[in-house]
Amino acid sequence: MSEHSHQVKELMGQAEHALDAVQAILDSVLANLKSRTQKGGQVSAAKIDDYQLIAYDAALSSAEASAARFMLDYATKVRVETGNTSKTLNLEDSLALFFCAEAIHSIRARLSARPDDFGISQTELTAKLESESVRGFCNSQLATQNIAALGKAVCELNGQVGAYLLDDHHQMMQDTFRRVANEVVMPLAKEIHQKDLIIPDAILEQVKELGCFGLSIPERFGGLQSDEQEDNMGMIVVTEELSRGSLGAAGSLITRPEILSRALLKGGTEEQKQQWLPKLAVGEILCAVAVTEPNYGSDVAAMRLKATKTEGGWLLNGAKTWCTFGGKAGVLLVLARTNPDLSLGHRGLSMFLAEKPTYDGHAFEYKQEGGGKLSGKAIATIGYRGMHSFEMFFDNFFVPDENLLGGPEGLGKGFYFTMAGFSGGRIQTAARAIGLMQVAFERAVSYAKDRLVFGKPIADYQLTQVKLARMAAYLAASRQFTYAVGRLMDTGKGDMEASMVKLFTCKTAEWLTREALQIHGGMGYAEETPVSRYFVDARVLSIFEGAEETLALKVIAPALVKNARDN
Amino acid sequence: MSEHSHQVKELMGQAEHALDAVQAILDSVLANLKSRTQKGGQVSAAKIDDYQLIAYDAALSSAEASAARFMLDYATKVRVETGNTSKTLNLEDSLALFFCAEAIHSIRARLSARPDDFGISQTELTAKLESESVRGFCNSQLATQNIAALGKAVCELNGQVGAYLLDDHHQMMQDTFRRVANEVVMPLAKEIHQKDLIIPDAILEQVKELGCFGLSIPERFGGLQSDEQEDNMGMIVVTEELSRGSLGAAGSLITRPEILSRALLKGGTEEQKQQWLPKLAVGEILCAVAVTEPNYGSDVAAMRLKATKTEGGWLLNGAKTWCTFGGKAGVLLVLARTNPDLSLGHRGLSMFLAEKPTYDGHAFEYKQEGGGKLSGKAIATIGYRGMHSFEMFFDNFFVPDENLLGGPEGLGKGFYFTMAGFSGGRIQTAARAIGLMQVAFERAVSYAKDRLVFGKPIADYQLTQVKLARMAAYLAASRQFTYAVGRLMDTGKGDMEASMVKLFTCKTAEWLTREALQIHGGMGYAEETPVSRYFVDARVLSIFEGAEETLALKVIAPALVKNARDN
Repeated sequence: MSEHSHQVKELMGQAEHALDAVQAILDSVLANLKSRTQKGGQVSAAKIDDYQLIAYDAALSSAEASAARFMLDYATKVRVETGNTSKTLNLEDSLALFFCAEAIHSIRARLSARPDDFGISQTELTAKLESESVRGFCNSQLATQNIAALGKAVCELNGQVGAYLLDDHHQMMQDTFRRVANEVVMPLAKEIHQKDLIIPDAILEQVKELGCFGLSIPERFGGLQSDEQEDNMGMIVVTEELSRGSLGAAGSLITRPEILSRALLKGGTEEQKQQWLPKLAVGEILCAVAVTEPNYGSDVAAMRLKATKTEGGWLLNGAKTWCTFGGKAGVLLVLARTNPDLSLGHRGLSMFLAEKPTYDGHAFEYKQEGGGKLSGKAIATIGYRGMHSFEMFFDNFFVPDENLLGGPEGLGKGFYFTMAGFSGGRIQTAARAIGLMQVAFERAVSYAKDRLVFGKPIADYQLTQVKLARMAAYLAASRQFTYAVGRLMDTGKGDMEASMVKLFTCKTAEWLTREALQIHGGMGYAEETPVSRYFVDARVLSIFEGAEETLALKVIAPALVKNARDN
Repeated sequence: MSEHSHQVKELMGQAEHALDAVQAILDSVLANLKSRTQKGGQVSAAKIDDYQLIAYDAALSSAEASAARFMLDYATKVRVETGNTSKTLNLEDSLALFFCAEAIHSIRARLSARPDDFGISQTELTAKLESESVRGFCNSQLATQNIAALGKAVCELNGQVGAYLLDDHHQMMQDTFRRVANEVVMPLAKEIHQKDLIIPDAILEQVKELGCFGLSIPERFGGLQSDEQEDNMGMIVVTEELSRGSLGAAGSLITRPEILSRALLKGGTEEQKQQWLPKLAVGEILCAVAVTEPNYGSDVAAMRLKATKTEGGWLLNGAKTWCTFGGKAGVLLVLARTNPDLSLGHRGLSMFLAEKPTYDGHAFEYKQEGGGKLSGKAIATIGYRGMHSFEMFFDNFFVPDENLLGGPEGLGKGFYFTMAGFSGGRIQTAARAIGLMQVAFERAVSYAKDRLVFGKPIADYQLTQVKLARMAAYLAASRQFTYAVGRLMDTGKGDMEASMVKLFTCKTAEWLTREALQIHGGMGYAEETPVSRYFVDARVLSIFEGAEETLALKVIAPALVKNARDN
């Protein structure tokens, strides 16, 4: 074993050890939270609400710790694959070690603000996280010189932050969609944003042609995915590259077919699958999701849109909001209350596939022959333009029996089908976040190298180097976290992890695009400069597909607490 | 002395003590930085560049510590003025104590990331900032229950965060301009933003009529300010209230007359003062500032726009950018190079008052009789709309001799006059930030109380209460920090502090508006909802009137280091 590999091994060992210490503390925190939130042997959601701050911080800290762990695994893999035995650390090693220290520092700061509330003693906290070895590791990684050197190194790479480690198949997909992003999407992105246009056919047709809408659909239904196993990595890579072109004008196109396909695969009858999936796969029919209601946000159980039985079908009445791509879509996945008894909560909900014509404008009104009506109005937003999110009003809108998802068996199961669909939306959103971060980072590096201040490029200043190093480390960690969870999902697991990675990457994207804009100075605030768009686009990420608070408090914390050891 | 006042006194004492400990550490940091950045007995700007990260963090930490100190002073003043002897703490006490703990925690986290680089030992850091008493104070203030209770309390107050402590004169100003904001500005703000309109006369005339443009102009020149002493508080209060109405469509109107008045008062000849100040004071002539150049940002010494002597005046040639309100303005304050020898740096620069017609549109071209030309084009931005920032091209543009600021004596002094003008721009920008935060906070509270999720208002959830408590504390601290520095400036001091308060409040406004948007969920992202505008507006604050990096590294850190003790 070379001297170098000794050094790498030692540093990696220090990082592992420090993460173990963090994990031990987080385990205590979760065990403690479990003991406080149990009711009759079960973890009670209502009781978690009494500890929201702790639960939120535990969820976010766990997400950061997971990201750090995956980042170390990744660096190890890179070393194995490249067989690097040079004297210096790989870039991936350096990024992984630095990111670990950042994550540990941030978790430590969070916990030390209120150790009592976390149910840990100051002594335990100090013993675990302020030990000589943990502190030694963090201090050396967080030393200015180390970070600035890393910043200089990434600056030379024009926006690259280490190997992606894709297999050939996914590498090919990446190449293809990077080209689409560069050649087709980027030249149109600014105009789409500034004029708030709907995604033009130039982009749509390209995406259709390359089979993107079938990425999560098995081959036997005309999709690109093997019949044996999900291929989340394919969906992730394509989403990432398209989002690098534009979040709103390309990267989000797959979200809705992704959700609809998953819901159909989970809940649809064989006939429904046969009827819809092949059309969705080739983009013959475009789709949208009508779940959120104006007054209920993510409180699915309180949904009011009513479906009343009529001859041969159902009549829908009520309103939905944030129905993204709802104008262009030919079919809407509508969550409706089929049982008027509100006390049933989500057990009174069913899922429908509502067909409609496709519209390009900011508003439409569709009248059915039988008198039913559906009208929609796009909601103007500060970013994420191109898809158009609609408010929708259903007025005696008729849906035939065969469009009740799951058939008669599906009655009352709408909530579960929704959840099945949305689990894909979360990992997909993480992929959107990393694509957006990637392009923002590329622009920041390029601007920092070109722009002279006081006679030299701003990239030559320490503060810029530190910013770029942090951006690079968080971007690389976000990507590898997303990939790792994607692979986990291929094996049928990773549902909670998908929420974790969505929480982490979306918060990170907000921060990273903010920094990228700041590096641009005044020009960053101009619409002319793409980074201004990345900044406003990123702001939507922590809101949609599960707001950060919802994910942390309703998905991640309960799952972590449930699996925590008993105190 | 009542039992209560004992308790308050004790808590305040703990806070003071903890802040003293922080200050002692920061003093060490600065002394250490001084020892490393001296060159021939002088602090060297170039050497500070070798320690940018440390210098930046020291500047920001010092700003936070100052804000905390002023916040404690404020709470004490409120207690004295209200004579409160009830059993509970005043709201102002609670906000001040909590803010102190937040500031200390944030400084501690920053320093503990890299103690070696800060030149402090782990032992010193632990002894000072992890002492039983400092930790005891912080832990009790940062305890979830304490914060959540504070959040509940502020929620009842519909956006108020404690007494302003204004004297009658300024209270009257506040009442007047709050009314203007509510009745005149707010109803127009959304349309101005969405359609990117120039500020309409309805607002402009109102602001003129109330004498706003003369707020920093002494009475003898037709302004509102006493001839004996500056009245920064008046300018701050008016700016704050107008910015509460809209940052771009009202709150920023005073910035330019503020800068121009200060430059004129500092550098103008008596004739120039007599000629310009009365017209500026009543808004008979509107003004703009043309200092920044496309390729040089805040690097004033590198400015290229050339002024060449000609008969009876000067010919200006070159480009300026970010000339806000440049279309509407009737006079531009132009920084130009009167000595072509670039090696003179800022000593080759002079300041001119360039007259032009006023234009409403997004572009204009003005031809002088003698053949000179000035063209301008508004730069589209993601927010801060209403003022329109122009790129300007000067082509043999003639300015008569009498418009050289300071007359022949003013030659080569343009840089100093610019600095004099901009010092007012910084405190004024802090006031803009607090007005924007105030309205964002009001909307967040109101939405949190109205919006039901899972059957109860989100204001009833702990995480929302924590968010609102933090927002309230940072808003109150920002306001009182700004007021304190404003009063300091009235006595002719506070130049460095103006940069500190600008740095702190603008960063805080970015964060606070982000949180306010998040509380609104999806609706926060819609242009329909004012908070979406506050979010994009706030993003400009850390960029203009001195970017955060420039203020920290070029103004605050050098001043702090210069005044630090010798090690």
